Amino acid sequence: MSTDAPADLGALAARLRAAIDQETAHHLAAAGHADLRPPHRAVLAALDDAGSRATAIGRRTGQHKQVVGTSVDELEALGYVERQPDPVDRRAKLVVPTARGLDARRVLATTAATIADRHREAVGDRIFTLFTRVLGDVAERQEAWRAPGP
Amino acid sequence: MSTDAPADLGALAARLRAAIDQETAHHLAAAGHADLRPPHRAVLAALDDAGSRATAIGRRTGQHKQVVGTSVDELEALGYVERQPDPVDRRAKLVVPTARGLDARRVLATTAATIADRHREAVGDRIFTLFTRVLGDVAERQEAWRAPGP
Repeated sequence: MSTDAPADLGALAARLRAAIDQETAHHLAAAGHADLRPPHRAVLAALDDAGSRATAIGRRTGQHKQVVGTSVDELEALGYVERQPDPVDRRAKLVVPTARGLDARRVLATTAATIADRHREAVGDRIFTLFTRVLGDVAERQEAWRAPGP
Repeated sequence: MSTDAPADLGALAARLRAAIDQETAHHLAAAGHADLRPPHRAVLAALDDAGSRATAIGRRTGQHKQVVGTSVDELEALGYVERQPDPVDRRAKLVVPTARGLDARRVLATTAATIADRHREAVGDRIFTLFTRVLGDVAERQEAWRAPGP
């Protein structure tokens, strides 16, 4: 049952995302990475330093493989990643960050930690830990939603 | 201080938003509103039935006035809203949903309630209420962030 003013999780998530994007864009631009747009940032942040397959990036970002592919193409053109053969399966490709990509990843990680620390301090450690766990659970449960079949 | 695996709130918010967008798009399309993209939906959901000023829409969606203006232009072209003079200040404009806009708003509200109910049932009423309150607080605090002045 909903309360009188039911929670619009989509609107709240969109607001939080937009506000975080703004702070992230500021720190990236200050570090010389003004060319990275939000979809690029999500893909870069989801990489392992040693490289990741597109399927793993899709799972971590919740994006379709095709969307990930487009971002990887653009990141490659901008010099942030390279596609390399996967050493454990030469038919597969790994998306590997370049030196420029690793630098942007450091900015992304620092910004994410700064933002998390700010909100953790404001709401307290116990509530923040609970909050992020529930946020992750809700995102995962929502990602499991599938349209009813025909 | 961050823990070993610090929370990436931006990534979590982006995943949740994308997953909710997918379910919302499905229900909108089923109701004949396949032409509404996510920025349109945010603006439509933020309207009052009697109409809202662009500044209020910007505050509720966390979007810049210019971004709101573009979405309102597109929603007007698609027949979802009309700009009308504000009866309490004839120099100001209200963005007012049309019959088609009101129908899409009903779909948006039903979908948001379905999604909220699903997660409320899964995590329990007490945790869900706490979660959405913290999510709103975190979004508002994050929106208050301003780039350091020059």
